[in-house]
Amino acid sequence: MKFTIAVIPGDGIGPEVTNQAKKALNAVADTYNHVFLYKEAQMGACAIDETGNPLPEETLNICKKSDAILFGAIGDPKYDNNPTATVRPEQGLLRLRKELGLYCNVRPVKAYDQLIANSPLKEEIIKGTDIAIFRELTGGIYFGIKELSDDKQVAFDGCSYSVEEISRITHLAFQAAQNRRKKVTLVDKANVLETSRLWRKTVTEIAKKYKDVSLEFLFVDNAAMQMILNPKQFDVILTENLFGDIISDEASVIGGSIGLLASSSIGDKSALFEPIHGSFPQAKGKDVANPLASILSAAMLLEHLGLHEEAEAIERAVEKSLVLGITTEDIKNKSNFSASTSKVGDFIADYI
Amino acid sequence: MKFTIAVIPGDGIGPEVTNQAKKALNAVADTYNHVFLYKEAQMGACAIDETGNPLPEETLNICKKSDAILFGAIGDPKYDNNPTATVRPEQGLLRLRKELGLYCNVRPVKAYDQLIANSPLKEEIIKGTDIAIFRELTGGIYFGIKELSDDKQVAFDGCSYSVEEISRITHLAFQAAQNRRKKVTLVDKANVLETSRLWRKTVTEIAKKYKDVSLEFLFVDNAAMQMILNPKQFDVILTENLFGDIISDEASVIGGSIGLLASSSIGDKSALFEPIHGSFPQAKGKDVANPLASILSAAMLLEHLGLHEEAEAIERAVEKSLVLGITTEDIKNKSNFSASTSKVGDFIADYI
Ligand SMILES: CC(C)[C@H](C(=O)O)[C@@H](O)C(=O)O
Ligand SMILES: CC(C)[C@H](C(=O)O)[C@@H](O)C(=O)O
Repeated sequence: MKFTIAVIPGDGIGPEVTNQAKKALNAVADTYNHVFLYKEAQMGACAIDETGNPLPEETLNICKKSDAILFGAIGDPKYDNNPTATVRPEQGLLRLRKELGLYCNVRPVKAYDQLIANSPLKEEIIKGTDIAIFRELTGGIYFGIKELSDDKQVAFDGCSYSVEEISRITHLAFQAAQNRRKKVTLVDKANVLETSRLWRKTVTEIAKKYKDVSLEFLFVDNAAMQMILNPKQFDVILTENLFGDIISDEASVIGGSIGLLASSSIGDKSALFEPIHGSFPQAKGKDVANPLASILSAAMLLEHLGLHEEAEAIERAVEKSLVLGITTEDIKNKSNFSASTSKVGDFIADYI
Repeated sequence: MKFTIAVIPGDGIGPEVTNQAKKALNAVADTYNHVFLYKEAQMGACAIDETGNPLPEETLNICKKSDAILFGAIGDPKYDNNPTATVRPEQGLLRLRKELGLYCNVRPVKAYDQLIANSPLKEEIIKGTDIAIFRELTGGIYFGIKELSDDKQVAFDGCSYSVEEISRITHLAFQAAQNRRKKVTLVDKANVLETSRLWRKTVTEIAKKYKDVSLEFLFVDNAAMQMILNPKQFDVILTENLFGDIISDEASVIGGSIGLLASSSIGDKSALFEPIHGSFPQAKGKDVANPLASILSAAMLLEHLGLHEEAEAIERAVEKSLVLGITTEDIKNKSNFSASTSKVGDFIADYI
């Protein structure tokens, strides 16, 4: 079969890890007789540097016309400490999410047995953890009105949610739970926020249609504690945009394997796949960044295109690399030498 | 000396732990020749049950007339899963904070060596952690406008911050840092929120007046990761209301000693002291709850009244109870029997 894949390498280590994912996709194309047509596009700090726009129109068009998007990472320190900059790399990603309607961000967090020694948590707490976080991605305070008063003394951010925005991701979360351990935990702050109360009411209503799935509620402050105290209690976590940003990043490090975590951002017409780790500017161009999360993003992308067997081939290759200890420095065992980004990518591609 | 102390036991285990704190205060009064006049007042679910109001006017008046407030905990499960309830226990606490102008919430997080075995984190990561979290407590999305559209399809929460609100707590945070390890970390989401950008700008400006203190910035999602990966990097954390709620709760469990963490909420005219743990309804009335956080809240209260020696007497007694292993079940060593809430309170009072 033939697919068009938009590739947005982005900033920092984005380009080098995305290259390894492309190697894996090429190996899949060879082995399973597919054609992947890559359309490279720019977004983020690199796009600002070249065009002044963090999301050039051309990038948006390429994405709209492709079957799926493979994305690297975004962000550059030169923009972070400049609160008055009016153009910032993140605006590119936020606008892309909004324009393509990528409302459902899924971040699986899995504690790989081989990597548990790297976890900051004690083994008995983390072992067996397997969570899917469903984060709403195109609403809430991220996209509310923003104001700075004329005298620059008062700033404002608005946060709103509609029943419709809440419902569509809620259905996806419950459907996912049906194929997992059949539990959804809604994370909110319903004791304080009006939007959270609408989430609780809407989700409670929808839950009645999924009788095989149980629903629990957790205030976001409590969720931040439970994620450390007992992460195994979670199956599917459902939450709004900002809480999802915080809780999923917290969750991403508990397994000691952030270098392996991929994510998908799904809309009705488009789908984007990216590693959870950011642009990690310190490692840029050094050929040391872990490419596995990007490679596993490619596997999620194949799964999304309906290519199950092909996705599994990538996952098997990744597991093999872990078992053999052909890994980058960040996750290596005491007994192994570490391999470079590109060596790991080559191994995965060969194995496929 | 003579002081009036408002005592708000609140809900759940609030009353039983507050009682132990009063025992400690009484012992201090005897030993150091002070008079503490307690004015008991109601707030929370118990106040709703009796008066229909989570913060009766009488309670507010008692608090306004007292030198300091000792508070237990608030919240009851019967309100949590009822998003349409118009009267909720939390409203009492939020209104009290606002009415008394308690804008600066300080939550110290310390990893006690004796309790490190209880931490979910590995010892090498947690040992030595000592953080003071400064959370803004009377602004932000907690107190913004809240709306539900007439057709109940769209909910809204407004979040605003003024330079003035940001400035007053920032000064307190930097002053605290001067007496500590001289580092302030501002936690925000300046890559997305207008209010965060105003925080970053205002804090950067104020930092110039504290040349001996260094200032760092961290996005809240990254902060949630760093709190687990390397909590020792933090000295003073400064943040807005909602981020402070989440990050401080996350931080409270990493030391394995949430049962020992006290907090203060300071305004220009009033000050309130409370344990960080909540109302923990499951343990209510069972005489098993850990009273140390409430007892250490009383020590913070004395410190606030200028009674340093007296505060230290309580702290020493608490340390002694840990060394001797006279502790409640939650923090006991394998080798000790556990003591009841009131037994621990009695020991502390006797030792003082
Ligand atoms: C870069 C930033 C705007 C973004 C977000 O907050 O959504 C990132 O943290 C993420 O989680 O994808
Ligand atoms: C009870 C609740 C409203 C409160 C808050 O969110 O501020 C609590 O979680 C806290 O941190 O004191």
